[in-house]
Amino acid sequence: MQSSRQPHILSLMEELGVDKYKQYTDGIKFMQIADKKIKTYSSNIPSMSLFALIDLQLFINRVERMRKVVPLDNPSKAKKALELDSMTVETFKRQHLTSNAAREAINAAVRVMFGMECCEMSVLYFLHYANSAGGLTALIEASEGAGQEFKIKGGAQPLSEKLADKIGRENVWLNEPVVQVNQEDRSKVVITTASGKTVSAKRVIMSVPPNFVVKIDFCPSLPLDKRSLLQRQPMGHLIKFIATYSNKFWRENGQSGEVVCSYGDPVLAHDSGPLCLVYDATSPNGNPALVGFLGKSREWSKRSSEERKKAVLDHLMQFFGEMAGTPIDYVEKDWGEEPYNGGCPVSVMVPGAITYFHESLRKPFDRIHWAGTETASIAVGYLSGAVQSGIRACVEVVSHLQPSLVKDTDRTKITPCGFQHQSAAESNFFKSVVINMLIGLTLAMIVYFIYN
Amino acid sequence: MQSSRQPHILSLMEELGVDKYKQYTDGIKFMQIADKKIKTYSSNIPSMSLFALIDLQLFINRVERMRKVVPLDNPSKAKKALELDSMTVETFKRQHLTSNAAREAINAAVRVMFGMECCEMSVLYFLHYANSAGGLTALIEASEGAGQEFKIKGGAQPLSEKLADKIGRENVWLNEPVVQVNQEDRSKVVITTASGKTVSAKRVIMSVPPNFVVKIDFCPSLPLDKRSLLQRQPMGHLIKFIATYSNKFWRENGQSGEVVCSYGDPVLAHDSGPLCLVYDATSPNGNPALVGFLGKSREWSKRSSEERKKAVLDHLMQFFGEMAGTPIDYVEKDWGEEPYNGGCPVSVMVPGAITYFHESLRKPFDRIHWAGTETASIAVGYLSGAVQSGIRACVEVVSHLQPSLVKDTDRTKITPCGFQHQSAAESNFFKSVVINMLIGLTLAMIVYFIYN
Repeated sequence: MQSSRQPHILSLMEELGVDKYKQYTDGIKFMQIADKKIKTYSSNIPSMSLFALIDLQLFINRVERMRKVVPLDNPSKAKKALELDSMTVETFKRQHLTSNAAREAINAAVRVMFGMECCEMSVLYFLHYANSAGGLTALIEASEGAGQEFKIKGGAQPLSEKLADKIGRENVWLNEPVVQVNQEDRSKVVITTASGKTVSAKRVIMSVPPNFVVKIDFCPSLPLDKRSLLQRQPMGHLIKFIATYSNKFWRENGQSGEVVCSYGDPVLAHDSGPLCLVYDATSPNGNPALVGFLGKSREWSKRSSEERKKAVLDHLMQFFGEMAGTPIDYVEKDWGEEPYNGGCPVSVMVPGAITYFHESLRKPFDRIHWAGTETASIAVGYLSGAVQSGIRACVEVVSHLQPSLVKDTDRTKITPCGFQHQSAAESNFFKSVVINMLIGLTLAMIVYFIYN
Repeated sequence: MQSSRQPHILSLMEELGVDKYKQYTDGIKFMQIADKKIKTYSSNIPSMSLFALIDLQLFINRVERMRKVVPLDNPSKAKKALELDSMTVETFKRQHLTSNAAREAINAAVRVMFGMECCEMSVLYFLHYANSAGGLTALIEASEGAGQEFKIKGGAQPLSEKLADKIGRENVWLNEPVVQVNQEDRSKVVITTASGKTVSAKRVIMSVPPNFVVKIDFCPSLPLDKRSLLQRQPMGHLIKFIATYSNKFWRENGQSGEVVCSYGDPVLAHDSGPLCLVYDATSPNGNPALVGFLGKSREWSKRSSEERKKAVLDHLMQFFGEMAGTPIDYVEKDWGEEPYNGGCPVSVMVPGAITYFHESLRKPFDRIHWAGTETASIAVGYLSGAVQSGIRACVEVVSHLQPSLVKDTDRTKITPCGFQHQSAAESNFFKSVVINMLIGLTLAMIVYFIYN
């Protein structure tokens, strides 16, 4: 979360008085790709053959060149957009990478970034995602200025807590999943929750992952374009674990705690160990821990937790020795089983989705505005993107209700398709609506902070 | 609907005493592709330059060779499955077609077959679809033995009516959309409809398009693999029209009524005329009519019906002269706006879906069995596929409840993943369950017959 790359979350954290700390990356790193051999390195340059390194670097350079010219607000306007949106990252990778090791390194990166395989997303989506993060290198590294540089002290939950305090706990409804959004009465939106509670508002900001928007009953139904886009934004899937130990044995052995793995058959996960990425997760007050993600987690999701735990610890021991096998605590989270999340870390867009439906990503549906990290243009998929999208949706709503309050600098935050001119009658209701809107935004953020 | 290609619907029609008649194809056909020039031909060989014809034929030959080796029951077992499932049809088309005219001909074919563009689906899905239809040629032609050879007398509705009569109208609940499917009590399934009615059954056959399965509340929730597949099966979109005339002026002019169009910018439909495909739709008792589909129908869906009608008639006049501009009746159907359909003619699979999730396509979820043309292995996407899938799901259910009733020849209709061994306790309930199951199957068919 470096300021230039993830500015929105950093500024919110500052506002709320939530601290950050640096990701620990000093020492030896492990890599186990392609041929299953464990290799070590301590710089940012992975341990591969010279040929594979050159192959990988040329590929990264190509991606960096290409991603820079993908417009953040509208990737469908990129040069050769149709061609890039017609191709999966797998096809692109096969075209431009020769060595097996470099291909596996990209597989591992994509798996951790999206919780998916390279064949499941459009190249144009991938390039836009990389551009919105400030570059591919920023996405995959934990070094200075990269996406994984900082961690939030106490985890992301305090952010939600402080936001909830700020707007008043009584204004936040938890455990009230929305089942219907009705705007048949053209002057308001009526929201119904599963328990039958209703709330009515002038405008609504929806910040719900695409795979759950489709479950909500909209009256009238969403426009065809929006429905079509939602059918083309599959959610990724990762299983995360945190193993807590009595001491930082890896640091004592000069190891950073970082492991990257990718090998074996891409379909049958049981041919390979479960680990994809591991990092040091020692807390700021010194509790030693390792955090990691299971690669090919859809396959691992079918096993029992015990089986997964055993496989993870066995795999960790290959790198860190016997001590890694006896954590004092071990927790895991299969995001696919979360009832209001269904996956992690983000939904992607399949080929053709940007070309034919991107316009509907942020376009308000009458009084419904769209937020959520999937709708961001900076740091898509990150907490920062969620905050940016919330601010953008907020400016949209205020522009309708009290345009005089919107400064010129705010206006630049609205993408062209996100803004529609207000109807004069609405201005009077400004005060109550801003409150409703803030509740919506906060709820949105809480959902994101809890689940991302 | 030739017997070898669409055997299941033909045999059902025979059983129910529903007649068929031949698609009229005699005479001059029109083609307007690539350069917008209108060309005529009267054989099955489209009017293109020799180079484009050779280019197109080589492509078709390639597809026919490749599709033949895609296993109908499990396309993920095809040779080079991962490579083919990683690529979109657009990438494949660009790799193997050089001429603009041949590319546009494939665009038109894909648009009418799937209601989508080439970049929106996996090559492996496309090859499996073609194989299940008996070949690409069978899919795109209306000649003898091809998919469009026959039409149903009186339309598809009589089939649903006769099926409903057969099982008793009182057993068919119409206007009762399912909102919940609960199998928390492990001995039965409880279905709740939107009006609050419930029905309980030993086993359930679901025959609902993927874009509507996701709206149903399953308790417990569907397995991750099934949910993941459903997120990767977007629905196509077409707008259909039927223009009825006082006389068959096209036949009188030696024209067959057939038009194929594809030109202009693939994203911006308003650069081109609306028509994609037109056929003679004169009824068996002689009412003259033309039926057609609008290409790039998502764009046309945003216009008013009047605007669409005017554009369609203007475009028809380019081929058939002024008389085409004054039909005595004109009806259109935008399938995207149908509340329990949301598109047409079929949902496809995006890249990676077959590789990672095909196993869950027909795999029963405890007591829930999956039917619907998307789950067929012969004539996927057609009425015949819907019937085949219904028979397969039926055999699955009977295999659980009264295995002795299932003949060896029936067993071959069950795909390996569709069959699980029965628990002994269930056999006693056989009679009532078969009735429930028949209701389910019939409802499924009715839904399909109405909406396809």
